[in-house]
Amino acid sequence: MTHYKLTLAYDGTNFAGYQVQPKQRTVQGVLEKALAKMTKGIPVHVDGSGRTDSGVHALGQVISFEYPGDIPAPSMLRAMNSLMPLDIEILQAEIVPEDFHARFSAKGKRYLYRVARGRYTDPFNRLYTGHYPYPLDVSRIELALQDLIGTHDFTSFAASGGVIVDKVRTIYEATVVEKPEQNDLVFEFYGNGFLYNMVRILVATSLEIGNGRRDVHDFIRLFEVKDRQQARGTAPASGLYLKEVYY
Amino acid sequence: MTHYKLTLAYDGTNFAGYQVQPKQRTVQGVLEKALAKMTKGIPVHVDGSGRTDSGVHALGQVISFEYPGDIPAPSMLRAMNSLMPLDIEILQAEIVPEDFHARFSAKGKRYLYRVARGRYTDPFNRLYTGHYPYPLDVSRIELALQDLIGTHDFTSFAASGGVIVDKVRTIYEATVVEKPEQNDLVFEFYGNGFLYNMVRILVATSLEIGNGRRDVHDFIRLFEVKDRQQARGTAPASGLYLKEVYY
Repeated sequence: MTHYKLTLAYDGTNFAGYQVQPKQRTVQGVLEKALAKMTKGIPVHVDGSGRTDSGVHALGQVISFEYPGDIPAPSMLRAMNSLMPLDIEILQAEIVPEDFHARFSAKGKRYLYRVARGRYTDPFNRLYTGHYPYPLDVSRIELALQDLIGTHDFTSFAASGGVIVDKVRTIYEATVVEKPEQNDLVFEFYGNGFLYNMVRILVATSLEIGNGRRDVHDFIRLFEVKDRQQARGTAPASGLYLKEVYY
Repeated sequence: MTHYKLTLAYDGTNFAGYQVQPKQRTVQGVLEKALAKMTKGIPVHVDGSGRTDSGVHALGQVISFEYPGDIPAPSMLRAMNSLMPLDIEILQAEIVPEDFHARFSAKGKRYLYRVARGRYTDPFNRLYTGHYPYPLDVSRIELALQDLIGTHDFTSFAASGGVIVDKVRTIYEATVVEKPEQNDLVFEFYGNGFLYNMVRILVATSLEIGNGRRDVHDFIRLFEVKDRQQARGTAPASGLYLKEVYY
């Protein structure tokens, strides 16, 4: 048995998310099917660094698995890419120590969120951005994002119904950059972990701050109230990218 | 009755081409359905500058139609956009003289073709580029494209089976530009008219010239032989964009 770590990019549009679900096309399902083809039927279980929802993209998702055989990493990369559909690309393959686990070994993650600002949805970006046609004062968002840095209770920013009790997370970086050529706004969040829907809720709240519908320091109030109803909005899945996982 | 000219962009991925076909989702079909909604059921026939195939995109397709009513152009733009799906955007609406016809009044067209050059297909560009992973000497393509300028018989570059007898067309511009940031190659062709599949065949032939599998001046030979079998390849629809129609 050999232990592999693979880094991959995918367009989440036509997947029912990362995690295997019966009768649905999922990223994990496609990966495990390809591996079973390589092993001539021996099932291989793939661990991902975390789930991504339907429509959410990845620029650097990480998976790990134990493979019944000993293939050099470059051959694993080639073989897996030859079995991938056009919406998944394997970027890197490495042989790693047995105790490496894509999820449990992860120390941090970086997410990116693209917001298209045109009046109408751009047909060519509708699957790859969230759309916000209202006026924005980006300097207000920049100011607000500074309040996220550090260790906070993100109860107000987690989709309800989750099983995770500890909602304290540490954010190392939270930035927004204007890309005037594309009329885009790009958010990046780097932290030790993220709750379900957390990035999409943070983006929706940031946009309301930028639009003036919330106080610039509303994040501080939201940390204190610990109430999901107060943050409300969730930015669409199409703008979200899992950019990098840190080990 | 008022005569309108509309300019529109669309992502061709989820359309069975521009032209109406029974039981298929087409651009013309979506436009005519939206107009019938505005007229409360009176059918409106839309003329396009030309067809685009399934998967082919438009950055500036032009349509014209006679509308039973007198709506200011900005209101027509807003009303039509509010009825469009996310993969069509109306860019401009104008009221034009009665004798304007999107197809018959067209004096020329400009097409763009994007080629992705990475080793593997990029998941995020697979619907918006053709893919060519082999080595290319772009200066050979630049040289070859100069042979296209002028008036030529494009019989070798037309999909067989068409009803058009006159295959002489004039090309005013034929260029290729490298976009190293995206690892892309962008072709542009501007001419008085294009035969069915002509741009996609010109691109496929250009790539074979760039790869060294054809002589740099093979276009001149192909003009003379007038034989579609000699040009062979057709670049995929996903890379092709109708960029502009000139009147």
